[in-house]
Amino acid sequence: MASDKQDELRFQLLSAQLELARSEDRAVVVLVAGHAGTGKGHLINRLNHWLENRLTEVQALVPSEDDRRHPYWWRYWTRLPPRGRIGIFVHGWVGDALFAGAARRLGEGALADRLQEIVTFESDLRAAGITLVKLWLDIDVEVQGQHLAALEADPETRWQVTEEKWQRHSQHEAIQQLGQQLRKTTATDESPWLCLDASPGSDLLTPVVEHMIAAMEGAGRLTETTARPVIEHSVLKAVPQLSDLAEHTGAIGKVEYREQLASAQAQLAELARRAVWRGIPLVVVFEGHDAAGKGGSIHRLTSALDARTYRVHSIAAPSEQELRYAWQWRFWQRLPIDGSVAVFDRSWYGRVLVERVESLIDEPEWRLGYHQIVDFENQLLSHGTVLVKLFLAINSDEQLKRFKARAVTPHKQHKLTDEDWRNRARWDDYQQAIDEMLAATHRSEAPWTLVDANDKRRARLAVLHEVTARLADRLQVDQ
Amino acid sequence: MASDKQDELRFQLLSAQLELARSEDRAVVVLVAGHAGTGKGHLINRLNHWLENRLTEVQALVPSEDDRRHPYWWRYWTRLPPRGRIGIFVHGWVGDALFAGAARRLGEGALADRLQEIVTFESDLRAAGITLVKLWLDIDVEVQGQHLAALEADPETRWQVTEEKWQRHSQHEAIQQLGQQLRKTTATDESPWLCLDASPGSDLLTPVVEHMIAAMEGAGRLTETTARPVIEHSVLKAVPQLSDLAEHTGAIGKVEYREQLASAQAQLAELARRAVWRGIPLVVVFEGHDAAGKGGSIHRLTSALDARTYRVHSIAAPSEQELRYAWQWRFWQRLPIDGSVAVFDRSWYGRVLVERVESLIDEPEWRLGYHQIVDFENQLLSHGTVLVKLFLAINSDEQLKRFKARAVTPHKQHKLTDEDWRNRARWDDYQQAIDEMLAATHRSEAPWTLVDANDKRRARLAVLHEVTARLADRLQVDQ
Repeated sequence: MASDKQDELRFQLLSAQLELARSEDRAVVVLVAGHAGTGKGHLINRLNHWLENRLTEVQALVPSEDDRRHPYWWRYWTRLPPRGRIGIFVHGWVGDALFAGAARRLGEGALADRLQEIVTFESDLRAAGITLVKLWLDIDVEVQGQHLAALEADPETRWQVTEEKWQRHSQHEAIQQLGQQLRKTTATDESPWLCLDASPGSDLLTPVVEHMIAAMEGAGRLTETTARPVIEHSVLKAVPQLSDLAEHTGAIGKVEYREQLASAQAQLAELARRAVWRGIPLVVVFEGHDAAGKGGSIHRLTSALDARTYRVHSIAAPSEQELRYAWQWRFWQRLPIDGSVAVFDRSWYGRVLVERVESLIDEPEWRLGYHQIVDFENQLLSHGTVLVKLFLAINSDEQLKRFKARAVTPHKQHKLTDEDWRNRARWDDYQQAIDEMLAATHRSEAPWTLVDANDKRRARLAVLHEVTARLADRLQVDQ
Repeated sequence: MASDKQDELRFQLLSAQLELARSEDRAVVVLVAGHAGTGKGHLINRLNHWLENRLTEVQALVPSEDDRRHPYWWRYWTRLPPRGRIGIFVHGWVGDALFAGAARRLGEGALADRLQEIVTFESDLRAAGITLVKLWLDIDVEVQGQHLAALEADPETRWQVTEEKWQRHSQHEAIQQLGQQLRKTTATDESPWLCLDASPGSDLLTPVVEHMIAAMEGAGRLTETTARPVIEHSVLKAVPQLSDLAEHTGAIGKVEYREQLASAQAQLAELARRAVWRGIPLVVVFEGHDAAGKGGSIHRLTSALDARTYRVHSIAAPSEQELRYAWQWRFWQRLPIDGSVAVFDRSWYGRVLVERVESLIDEPEWRLGYHQIVDFENQLLSHGTVLVKLFLAINSDEQLKRFKARAVTPHKQHKLTDEDWRNRARWDDYQQAIDEMLAATHRSEAPWTLVDANDKRRARLAVLHEVTARLADRLQVDQ
C-alpha cells in the first residue's frame, strides 16, 4: 500500500478514536483470535502505534491466581474498557474456549456450555453500548509449519516461536474445526467475524483498520433488546410473593431472642469457617423495603464472621466512573475471591427495582435485566459460589412507624431522606416490581427467601438460619 | 455507660463521618493492632454498626497471591480509602511486622528496615491528607490465657479461638516487646498511639470512638513537610545533566539502523523472555522533552516483547477519581505483577516536573516529592523489580522543527496542543527542573540514563541497549 494511503487510513482511525473519546457514549472491544504464527503480536503493535495509547488498553496477560479464584468471566468483565476507550483482547475468551477444546481440557458438553456463555457475554457487551470487533486470523497448516520453522531458523526471531506455538500447529485441524463452529455460533449482524488470510507477507493492518473504522462509525449506542428465550425455571419451590406474608407471626421475647441469636451465630460461625477453609465463596444478597432492617440483620450476620473473611458492599446509585461501564460491571468488581464472603446491602436487583420504578431505564432494558441477572447468577453458581438471596419485607404501616421513629433518633436521622418518602409514595409500584422480580428470578438453584421483617428479632434469626442452612447444604453437614 | 450517653457518642461519630464525606478533603485510616483475644473483631463490628457502611471500608483480608507478587506495600497502597472515606485496617502493616518479628520470620536487620518503612509509609499518608488513628489493644498474658480458654470452653464462642491465637498467646512476651519498640518508633504528634487495656469486660468502644472523633475534628488537611534527612546518594556514576548532551553524535543511516534494530530487538526479546520466566518484574520509565520521541521508542521496545507480558501506561493529568487519593496511588495501581513488564510513558516524575513548573503544588511539596520518589523506587528495588529510567532529551531547535512537522502531518496534529507551545515557552524552567530531578534521584541502584534523542534512530537503539543491559545485569548473562 502506498504510504500516502496508509497515512490517510491512520488519520481516519485516529479521528474515529478521538471522536469516540470525545463523545464517551460507547466503548470498543477488539478481539484478535485465530491460529498461531499469524502475526497477531505484530498486528497489535502496529495498531497500538496508530492508536492513541492513552485511550487504548491491550489485554493479553495470562490469567493470574486471583483470576482463577473468581468465576470464569470475572477476568473479562473487570478488564472491559470504559466508554470512550478501546480495549484490544488477544485471544481472549475465544482463545480460552478454542485451545481448551482442542486440547480436550474442555469436554464436548462443557464446550457447548461455554459457547452459549460467549453468546451471552457478547450480547451483554452490545447491550451496554460496546462495539465489538472480532478478527479471525487464518493460515493454512503447511504454510503455518513453514513459517514457524523459518522464524525459528533466524536467530533474531527465534524467541517468537514458543513451544506453545508448535503445539497449536499440531492441533491446527482441531482448532480450525472448533473455530468454524465457534464463529458460526457467535456471529451476529452487529458483530460479524472478519476472517483474514494471515499467510506471511499478507497486509493485515489495512483490512483490520478499515473494518474497525466502519464498525466505530456505524455503531450507534444500541441497546440490544432482541428476543431472548423465556427464562426456564427449574422451579421446585413455589415462587414466594409478598402476599404470602399477609398474616404474620408476632414478636419474639428479648430473652428468648438473645439465646437463639447466640446459638444461631455460633452455628453459622462454625460453618462459615469451614467454607472459608475449603475455599468456597459465599455471596449474601439483602434486598428489602426501606427500613426493613437490612443493616441490623447484616450486623448480626457479620458478627458471626471472621473480619478477615468478609466484606459488606452497600450499593447506592452508581458513581460517575461506574456509569462508564456496563451496569453489571460494578457487581463483577465486588465478587468475593474464593474462600471469602461478600454481603450485598442492596444489589444487582436494583436494575429491576429502583431503576425500573423510577424510570431510570426503559421497559425493554429492565425486562432484559431479568435475563442478565439470571446469566450473572449462573456464572456464580457454576463457579461454586453459595448464593443466598434474602428479601426483607415489611408492611406499609410498619414502615411508616419506623420512618417516624427514625425522624426522632439523632443517629438514625441521616438514614431517613426525602428519597425514602418519595419511594413510600410509590409503594404499590414497588410491590408490583418486587413480585415480578421474585417470579422472574426465583429458581431452585438460586432461590429467594422472603423474610417477614415486621418483627426485627424474628427477621434476624431467619436470616442467620437461612444462611446457615444454605452453607450446611453445600458442606453436606447435619446441623 | 448509660444508653443516653452512648447514643450521643454514636451521633457525634456519625456526624463527624458525614462531615468528612461532605467535605472530601481528607480520608481517615484506623489501624487496630495488638494482642490476640482482645476483642478486635467485636470492636470492629460495633464500629461498623455505628458508622455509615457506605462510607467505611474494613480491610482485614489475608494477602492474596497477587499481593505477594507485588512489592510489599502494594497491598496497602491499593487499599487506601479515597478522600471522604474511612478505612479500618485490622492488624495491617503493624501486625505484619509484629507477628513476623515474633515468629522470627523477619530477622533483626529486616525488622529494623521494616520499621523505617512504616515510618515512611505513615508519613506519606499524612502528607496526602490522611488522618491516621492508631489503636493498640493490650492484655496481660495470664488474663489472655484464661480468656482464650474460657472462649474455647463455650461451644458458642469456640470458633473464635483459632490455633493462631494460641500461637500468639505463646509469643505474648515477644509481641509485647516488639510492640513497645514499634509504637515508640512510629508515634508522632499527629498520629500518636492510643493504648487500651482490653481485658474481658473492658469498654473499648467509648475511648476508641472519642479518640476517633477528636482525631477527625482536630485534623486539618495538613501537608507534612517536616524536615527529612538529606537524600544520601550511593553515587557511583556521575549525575547526568542536560549540558552533557551539548555536542551530539550525528545521525545514523537507515540501512545500518534497520540491521542494528533487528539485532537489538532479538537480544532484548530473549532476555525479557527469561526475566518473565523467572518471575522478575520490569519497570521502564520514559521521561523526556515534548516531541523527544518517547512514543516511537516505546513502540520499538514493545515490539520485542510478548504482548501477554507487558502493559504501557500513558500518564496524563490525574482523573477526578485519582485526585481523591495520595498522588502516588495511581502509580502503585499500575505496578507490574511479578513476571510482567510495565512501561510508563511519563511517570511519577511529573510530581517534580510538570507539577512543579506549572505551580500545581507548592515548593515544599515538590521538594518532599524527591524523597517520596526515592522511597517509592526503593520499594520496587527491594522487591526485586528491574527499574530502568530513561530521559529522552532534545535541544530547543530540534523541538521547534518537530513541532512544525507535527502541525502539517494529519495523524500527528492531535499530538501538538496549545499545552506543548506553553511548555515550550517555559523551556528554561523545565531545563532547571530536569537537572535538579536528575541530581536528586540518580542513584547507583536506580540510575537515570540520559538519551540524546536529537537523532531518533540512535535514541531508539540506545533505549533498547539500556533495557537489555539492565536485564542482562540482573540475569547475570554475558550478552
